[in-house]
Amino acid sequence: MSRARDLGLIAGIMSPGAGNSITDVPGVDVGHVTLRRGVVNTGVTAIIPQPGNLFLHKLTAAVEVINGFGKSAGLVQVAELGTLETPILMTNTFGVGTCVNALIRRAIAETPQIGRQTSTVNAVVGECNDGPLSDIQALAVTEADALAAIDAAGPVVTEGSVGAGTGMSCFGFKGGIGTASRKVSIDGRDCHLGVLVLANFGRAGDLILPDGRRPDPRPDRGAATPAEKGSIMVVLATDVPLDQRQLQRVCRRAGAGIARLGAFWGHGSGDIVLGFTTANRVPHFADGDTFPMARLSDERIDDLFRAACESTEESILNALCAATAVTGPNNLSRPLLAEWLASN
Amino acid sequence: MSRARDLGLIAGIMSPGAGNSITDVPGVDVGHVTLRRGVVNTGVTAIIPQPGNLFLHKLTAAVEVINGFGKSAGLVQVAELGTLETPILMTNTFGVGTCVNALIRRAIAETPQIGRQTSTVNAVVGECNDGPLSDIQALAVTEADALAAIDAAGPVVTEGSVGAGTGMSCFGFKGGIGTASRKVSIDGRDCHLGVLVLANFGRAGDLILPDGRRPDPRPDRGAATPAEKGSIMVVLATDVPLDQRQLQRVCRRAGAGIARLGAFWGHGSGDIVLGFTTANRVPHFADGDTFPMARLSDERIDDLFRAACESTEESILNALCAATAVTGPNNLSRPLLAEWLASN
Amino acid sequence: MSRARDLGLIAGIMSPGAGNSITDVPGVDVGHVTLRRGVVNTGVTAIIPQPGNLFLHKLTAAVEVINGFGKSAGLVQVAELGTLETPILMTNTFGVGTCVNALIRRAIAETPQIGRQTSTVNAVVGECNDGPLSDIQALAVTEADALAAIDAAGPVVTEGSVGAGTGMSCFGFKGGIGTASRKVSIDGRDCHLGVLVLANFGRAGDLILPDGRRPDPRPDRGAATPAEKGSIMVVLATDVPLDQRQLQRVCRRAGAGIARLGAFWGHGSGDIVLGFTTANRVPHFADGDTFPMARLSDERIDDLFRAACESTEESILNALCAATAVTGPNNLSRPLLAEWLASN
Amino acid sequence: MSRARDLGLIAGIMSPGAGNSITDVPGVDVGHVTLRRGVVNTGVTAIIPQPGNLFLHKLTAAVEVINGFGKSAGLVQVAELGTLETPILMTNTFGVGTCVNALIRRAIAETPQIGRQTSTVNAVVGECNDGPLSDIQALAVTEADALAAIDAAGPVVTEGSVGAGTGMSCFGFKGGIGTASRKVSIDGRDCHLGVLVLANFGRAGDLILPDGRRPDPRPDRGAATPAEKGSIMVVLATDVPLDQRQLQRVCRRAGAGIARLGAFWGHGSGDIVLGFTTANRVPHFADGDTFPMARLSDERIDDLFRAACESTEESILNALCAATAVTGPNNLSRPLLAEWLASN
Repeated sequence: MSRARDLGLIAGIMSPGAGNSITDVPGVDVGHVTLRRGVVNTGVTAIIPQPGNLFLHKLTAAVEVINGFGKSAGLVQVAELGTLETPILMTNTFGVGTCVNALIRRAIAETPQIGRQTSTVNAVVGECNDGPLSDIQALAVTEADALAAIDAAGPVVTEGSVGAGTGMSCFGFKGGIGTASRKVSIDGRDCHLGVLVLANFGRAGDLILPDGRRPDPRPDRGAATPAEKGSIMVVLATDVPLDQRQLQRVCRRAGAGIARLGAFWGHGSGDIVLGFTTANRVPHFADGDTFPMARLSDERIDDLFRAACESTEESILNALCAATAVTGPNNLSRPLLAEWLASN
Repeated sequence: MSRARDLGLIAGIMSPGAGNSITDVPGVDVGHVTLRRGVVNTGVTAIIPQPGNLFLHKLTAAVEVINGFGKSAGLVQVAELGTLETPILMTNTFGVGTCVNALIRRAIAETPQIGRQTSTVNAVVGECNDGPLSDIQALAVTEADALAAIDAAGPVVTEGSVGAGTGMSCFGFKGGIGTASRKVSIDGRDCHLGVLVLANFGRAGDLILPDGRRPDPRPDRGAATPAEKGSIMVVLATDVPLDQRQLQRVCRRAGAGIARLGAFWGHGSGDIVLGFTTANRVPHFADGDTFPMARLSDERIDDLFRAACESTEESILNALCAATAVTGPNNLSRPLLAEWLASN
Repeated sequence: MSRARDLGLIAGIMSPGAGNSITDVPGVDVGHVTLRRGVVNTGVTAIIPQPGNLFLHKLTAAVEVINGFGKSAGLVQVAELGTLETPILMTNTFGVGTCVNALIRRAIAETPQIGRQTSTVNAVVGECNDGPLSDIQALAVTEADALAAIDAAGPVVTEGSVGAGTGMSCFGFKGGIGTASRKVSIDGRDCHLGVLVLANFGRAGDLILPDGRRPDPRPDRGAATPAEKGSIMVVLATDVPLDQRQLQRVCRRAGAGIARLGAFWGHGSGDIVLGFTTANRVPHFADGDTFPMARLSDERIDDLFRAACESTEESILNALCAATAVTGPNNLSRPLLAEWLASN
Repeated sequence: MSRARDLGLIAGIMSPGAGNSITDVPGVDVGHVTLRRGVVNTGVTAIIPQPGNLFLHKLTAAVEVINGFGKSAGLVQVAELGTLETPILMTNTFGVGTCVNALIRRAIAETPQIGRQTSTVNAVVGECNDGPLSDIQALAVTEADALAAIDAAGPVVTEGSVGAGTGMSCFGFKGGIGTASRKVSIDGRDCHLGVLVLANFGRAGDLILPDGRRPDPRPDRGAATPAEKGSIMVVLATDVPLDQRQLQRVCRRAGAGIARLGAFWGHGSGDIVLGFTTANRVPHFADGDTFPMARLSDERIDDLFRAACESTEESILNALCAATAVTGPNNLSRPLLAEWLASN
């Protein structure tokens, strides 16, 4: 598996974390379950934002809807309450309901008061449509798959055609899962902002690399390009102390990273950003009426903006560079950017 | 089953439609499936916004999130695209994923191109937490239940402890399903705005009736009232030609109807309004680049605002008046407003 | 000047602060300049949110646009940055530009780095249209008037036909300035939420008093009521520590208070809420990268929601009860609610 | 005055209109007043969206706030009502109040019923902070200047250091006014989308040209770059029939054009987009209850998205290429991109 940086494709000017991964943010883990059975090429990717009981000790979170042609679950409550209380799952569009059910059952098992002695739980699931490269009508993802992705989570992130990214396409190339990170110094301490993308967006012919090259996978460039029916789900993590207002502003800048690669957030593309900070945990059962939190000065937030933009751009490039060949219904497959780069 | 108006409880000054029901809007049907098995008291309510293939001939729709402590499905896409392309299902909080799956499978059966030759489908499902009166951890709702509610739909709406309303509570009384409508004259023609609510909100002691009475179901009024963990889902239908911007403004006024009854959209209450108009259908496959639509003059929109406010208020009163006794876990039940009214 | 509570009109169940005024929040002052010259009946009302240099030590603030038919200044930046950095002025719709200029010049005088060594300043001005009772085309308000209102500020709030409220109407009665507050116990300490309204909204015939009476000032109740062209500007202050997300949610509940009086946020009514907390000050020049703040537990926020709803409702009632007669162009005047109450 | 395209800098792939200007949209005119007096380098730019009385025959309009660190006037009402009823003025941050007053007086003169027999008028004014290159504390812009810019309007747009753009900076270079357009074929008819920008944003060193070059005006590239305190105001016009929802989505894509040049919508940059369509006029006094309008099929909207992105990017490049030298307080001036291009 090659990464964009190894191939000379570097987004921006900031330094990445040690792993150039969302898991550079301490406590964040990622796991995949990959389903490849005949013309089913799909899966589930889980982001564990922190170890322990997330329902009892929620994370400060925010959502930015860049283009809402999407069917993610749980976003409305994150926007209102500013908290995340389950792992984040990503899957294909028609796997969302099943992943929601899996997260609910898992939360009940972990915290039996849910829906009885206390409120219900808000399951967060992102999605993209892998239709062209997978038989999405099969509704192939099971609750067991969702839980297995969570159980598989660890600090090493596999990229490319894995997990939810198995059947995804991007700018006419094979897409999938990618990750990247940037370091930010806060109060003299090394902090991180990391991004993981499920990249399934972009019209063939629109991709612009950071070095200005424009890889076009179409055999006949004069032919009409089909309308974008993709999407991108961006998960953004940081250990910098932000409140929800700040976090949403940071999430918005993921859109700049997408745009720099040549996309314009197409009509048919559900472009959604979900962000959380591991600082400023929010207790489900409060001890007192108030609790202390820390907040970044807005005068320093440009570093986070830049990091969100660069990490998103490089995550997408990593997804494109790591993707391996997948053959779907009607023998359809996508060219690989790694191969284009090797021969251009 | 008694209705509020028969008991002297009338919201506002406008005239209701013939049925004082959301089904006064031509083409709108409603159906229920009610599950009462031991301590499971739940169900599914379906609103069919129009006959025929909704995916191919979408409706103009809008969402207003009054308080986003809720887990409804499909709202983000309705907000972005302004269209509704499935029936609307309502159920308990933990039945949403299953209802989403049922709507997806039903849409695929009806339109096999979905997810293959054309885009995916956005399933819309509302919910409230019936936890105290039902064993919500049972995840009792099945896909078959969801489809049965759709199949049961017709122009006569049963109110009270039925369908999704089976286990709901409202201002400390038994809540559930209610509906109401108002007539609006547009260009000399009788049009309607109708509302259907899944009423599960409001703290005991806060209810104010239109005649000023304040029914309080608490045996000891000095005791602390538990925090609101309810919700209200409002579905609003009209045949007045509106665009999405106007429709969202109309939906917002449902919040005024809720407030007039004494609620203040509590923190733990997911108060969501989903509205659609049967005018201005939107074709999935467009014939030309543009298509004509009609739009209400904003100078006339106050009538719709008032109708939304009054219909929501009266729908809630109808839910309260029609509700019948339900006994849930730990032998819990709620007093009936109809009985309070009979003895006060 | 009579107040609603003295006349038996009490909104809700919570206890007011000592003055039942926005100035019960420590450090908040209010001042008026009233212009009554021929058919000009207008003025300026200033809310000083805290003493000292607000630009250098900003307040955490939020905006809720209930109905955006309004021309207030400064709201976009408050929504993005969550800070207030000038006093809040209120005036007639066509006085906004002049009040903005006055606030800019005053801020420059106080902090000469503005626009030179540091960023510019965001002037916040609310407005309602006093057209029917004042010659709004005169653009009568001057920068000197704006500054005089600020200089006049103190802890005692005059209500009714004063300051920006001089020419305002409400539910067909004479409207104007009103204020109210509620006590909230936080961590064992008495805190307050206070509201001040510029009340110029509501159709004649729609008013519902807390005791259920419906005062209608129209001589002929069968006559058509002209469409609402009013507005209400609500300023909400608290010393409870909230972040911007929480503060906006609290501001939204002012809408419930308006609705309980019989309004439905009419199309032509610019219904805007601006809230600030005196806790969680935000330094313009930050010392370090982060700073500490306190946050209310969301589990306690219902008290603030209820306080916002009740204080807004009672502020409007206070405006109506305190209003005195004003005669405008074409000899137009409005009946007084105090007189209606005395004779009904 | 050179234009970007003549220098080989072309944004995207679509064809520009005949003038590559916002005035390619029929009926749109632009005028400037430029103030250069000592260290005052500022002015006013007027966009006349259509000839005739805009208050009586409003345009469908929308707003997208990319980053709300800005002090524009009139945006809240445009967002709520979806209409534009005055010319659009742009000026420096502290000139907004005066331009609002000028637009109000002009509207009253044209339509004397305003504020008397009918509602008030919503003046729309955009702004950027030209502080470093102009003495913004002078509040130099007068109402006469604002009206003169309107009177100067015509179909030929001067770009660079003129009008509101006189004292603006962009990526460390001299910025200012720029415009561009793209052709879109709708129902076999040539339509246009045009953009005009007031470009005052971007940190030195961040600019990326469409050909991949990265012009950096800093003498010492290792030095810290001061935080962005700029802004960009984008005005977007089209004659394609859109409703407000669609128009706001189109406006959002201006942000992609900004991002492609290397910016990430910095914290201190007020990045605002105001769009209007000349189709779907909205009468102030309606004849009937409803009126017809046309709407683009969403399936065609990607062309508008791409056009918005490309036109914004090229407008900024045009502003940079056309800018001429301006010397402000402390003898400060900015390098010219045209000179950098000539020598690189």
